[in-house]
Amino acid sequence: MKKTLSLSKVYQFLEPGPVVMVSTSYKNKNDIMTMSWHTMMDFEPPIVGCVISNRNYSFENLMKTNECVINIPTAALAKKVVGCGNTSGRKINKFNQFHLTPKLASKVKAPLIDECYVNLECKVIDKKLGKKYNFFILQVLKAWINPAEKNQKTLHHHGKGVFSISGKKIKLPSKMK
Amino acid sequence: MKKTLSLSKVYQFLEPGPVVMVSTSYKNKNDIMTMSWHTMMDFEPPIVGCVISNRNYSFENLMKTNECVINIPTAALAKKVVGCGNTSGRKINKFNQFHLTPKLASKVKAPLIDECYVNLECKVIDKKLGKKYNFFILQVLKAWINPAEKNQKTLHHHGKGVFSISGKKIKLPSKMK
Repeated sequence: MKKTLSLSKVYQFLEPGPVVMVSTSYKNKNDIMTMSWHTMMDFEPPIVGCVISNRNYSFENLMKTNECVINIPTAALAKKVVGCGNTSGRKINKFNQFHLTPKLASKVKAPLIDECYVNLECKVIDKKLGKKYNFFILQVLKAWINPAEKNQKTLHHHGKGVFSISGKKIKLPSKMK
Repeated sequence: MKKTLSLSKVYQFLEPGPVVMVSTSYKNKNDIMTMSWHTMMDFEPPIVGCVISNRNYSFENLMKTNECVINIPTAALAKKVVGCGNTSGRKINKFNQFHLTPKLASKVKAPLIDECYVNLECKVIDKKLGKKYNFFILQVLKAWINPAEKNQKTLHHHGKGVFSISGKKIKLPSKMK
């Protein structure tokens, strides 16, 4: 069962650079894209920058709807993550193909991927660099977390299907936010 | 001893989201900034987007010189990484304070941090979003790696000095670059 994740804490989940799955919906057709090229841009409201290539089916959906959900999968979902990366929404429905569950979001029409332990409902707030760099700036409107999976291991892509899985945590005295 | 890292492979080191140390130099004064807010934007030449707040001393250096080096530290350097994040170049020389070694770069005036296992010499190619979002787009001109440390563990920040250390690697059949 998911709970609300405070918007002030969203950066703690994206900052370490996990592979994410971006879900979109246009004319009731859902799609999923695997993505590693994203960065936090501000803390609160959480602003996220990401690169979504115009070769991706999701690019069109995002351009048309200005909405998406960033879903963070645990390492246990690695096969589905790579499956979504290897295929195109032009040809298949990825929710069906990879047995992923679309769930109604609260602020956007794009669906949450229920199997992911964190879901971030986003709207596009700036696409000035969309044409030149395929770069979109998103604002997180609403965030969800499965509290039972709070300290999950995440996937970090090194290219060509090689991932490192996040390992042990350390804490050092820090003034950093 | 560092060797040239092929520009076509740079993304494999930044894509997984490691904490990096950005070094700059202005009027022979070197500075270092700890940074987690970065993303790959293109493969080759490697283009990197990053957020460097205007509250940071490094922001001024970058604005004035349009050059920097992105240095990737191993987990073994965690204390120095956090030290550089906790202090300001306005008050101290971080190379001296944290016993880090500046080394001459080949394409830029900013120094490499010798202790980091990967160094990426960069020039700013776009700062259109610099004022509004503190967002800089960099092109990697030259990349270095210590081959003996190729498979190093990296640090991934979750906020407030909590880091996960990259763990074991897996490989899945993938069409992804």
